[in-house]
Amino acid sequence: MSILVVGSVALDSIETPFGKRKEILGGSATFFSISAAFFDKVDIIATVGEDFPKEYLRLLKKRGIGTGGIAVNKGKTFRWEGRYEYDMNVAHTLATRLNVFQDFAPEVPHNLRDSSILFLANIDPDLQDSVLKQVNKPKLIACDSMNHWITSKKRSLEKFLHKVDIFLLNDAEARQFSGESNLMKAAKAIISKGPKSVVIKKGEHGVIYYSGNGHFVVPAYPLENVYDPTGAGDTFAGGVIGYLSRTGKIDDATIRKSMVYGSIMASFAVEDFSVNRLLGIKLSDINKRYSDFKRLTRF
Amino acid sequence: MSILVVGSVALDSIETPFGKRKEILGGSATFFSISAAFFDKVDIIATVGEDFPKEYLRLLKKRGIGTGGIAVNKGKTFRWEGRYEYDMNVAHTLATRLNVFQDFAPEVPHNLRDSSILFLANIDPDLQDSVLKQVNKPKLIACDSMNHWITSKKRSLEKFLHKVDIFLLNDAEARQFSGESNLMKAAKAIISKGPKSVVIKKGEHGVIYYSGNGHFVVPAYPLENVYDPTGAGDTFAGGVIGYLSRTGKIDDATIRKSMVYGSIMASFAVEDFSVNRLLGIKLSDINKRYSDFKRLTRF
Repeated sequence: MSILVVGSVALDSIETPFGKRKEILGGSATFFSISAAFFDKVDIIATVGEDFPKEYLRLLKKRGIGTGGIAVNKGKTFRWEGRYEYDMNVAHTLATRLNVFQDFAPEVPHNLRDSSILFLANIDPDLQDSVLKQVNKPKLIACDSMNHWITSKKRSLEKFLHKVDIFLLNDAEARQFSGESNLMKAAKAIISKGPKSVVIKKGEHGVIYYSGNGHFVVPAYPLENVYDPTGAGDTFAGGVIGYLSRTGKIDDATIRKSMVYGSIMASFAVEDFSVNRLLGIKLSDINKRYSDFKRLTRF
Repeated sequence: MSILVVGSVALDSIETPFGKRKEILGGSATFFSISAAFFDKVDIIATVGEDFPKEYLRLLKKRGIGTGGIAVNKGKTFRWEGRYEYDMNVAHTLATRLNVFQDFAPEVPHNLRDSSILFLANIDPDLQDSVLKQVNKPKLIACDSMNHWITSKKRSLEKFLHKVDIFLLNDAEARQFSGESNLMKAAKAIISKGPKSVVIKKGEHGVIYYSGNGHFVVPAYPLENVYDPTGAGDTFAGGVIGYLSRTGKIDDATIRKSMVYGSIMASFAVEDFSVNRLLGIKLSDINKRYSDFKRLTRF
């Protein structure tokens, strides 16, 4: 199949207990596409400023990722600055400079309107909906969101979610969106609001998948070294969607496997800053970690 | 096989977001034994005061638990008062009244000196060691501990751990004891201090088992209703040890299954105050949840 991702391509400045990096490659569409591209064809729709390093575009292209939909607009690239505490579940946003991302009005080029899978990363739900309307009957629609949209655009988000097959969000967002503290109840409550299935991402504690037919729980791939959690959620989504696209199936067994592949992709992402670790691995490394994961969890 | 547990039998006063209970049956040996008794024969060594309700002793006996080793001593029974926040991972001890437990000097009666499995719940490591010396070559030695002993009796604990097959502790204690924030590293560091294997209990996030030959990670059984987490860790241990005792095997595959049974027993324990939920279930309920757990986690 073919995957279209709409989201951010950004420059991050990150501080973790293990180091500090300035203006490194980031953004939801970046992490997602590099992860998904291990499995299948991906195209990005995003916007960057004139200051966006050409080498980063080349890096994406070299991995077979379609960058024709990345508009280079007058102005500066979206920038995010964040700091993680020693407990890296605790993140502090130091600065968000939307720059050209402020006026992002994604347009799907004609050649991408037949994409079979659509991943709408964390952007304004009205934009997510406008993108969806430009694509001809995708086979699978997945999206992410965040606290900001849950607070400021809840009605738009809820309306849009009725069209979504897989809704991914983190545990705090799931609690906020559902009003339920218990995540199993939250998953049920979220499903009742429209999406066919929901994935609650719990960071180092794994994910919960719920489709109305039952839950699937998967621990995170256990790691000894976590350097930078930025992008883990989008890398996870890239693994899930990439695997589903590659197999061309969307049944229960395949979805479960896709969640494991997602966890594995995320486990690589957090082992270095930016997408550095993802750039250094091969499909065989992913498959090796998949086998490890089986051994780690089977009983 | 036969199991001997040494620990506390206590009266708890508990407040959770779901209610308040006064002087209900609690204590590590209580939760452990009721859980383990679903699988095999258990005897308790503990001390209670003259005020300990006879009905509680009858309750244990009725379940086939050996209570001959519960000494009724002059004075009052150990009491613990605690309050849990809405996030029930956060517990506050309001009062600890050791009473007769202060002078607990466990003596193993002759008829229990040939017990094949020994579980030394969270007590002074010097007492754990003294109990161990009174038992004739047990086939399996497991123990728990807590922050208090890690701080005040670290040397005794480390010395004792060299004799232990399975050391169970929670995530905060594992970090404290090992000095490692990462739990995979913590597990390795703990093994290097003596025990043959370690189980790190992460509450609602499951457990990590490490034996030097590799890790086993298992999520917690996902629940919609958690009323009182008191005793979950000891109930978990009861399920693990009970299952190992019943099967009579201590190989990798059996240990993995035992961890799942432990998680399932703990999942029942937290669904009501005290041991109430455990008293209402049958072995068939446990086996049903085991099948559910397989379905929830297989991929």
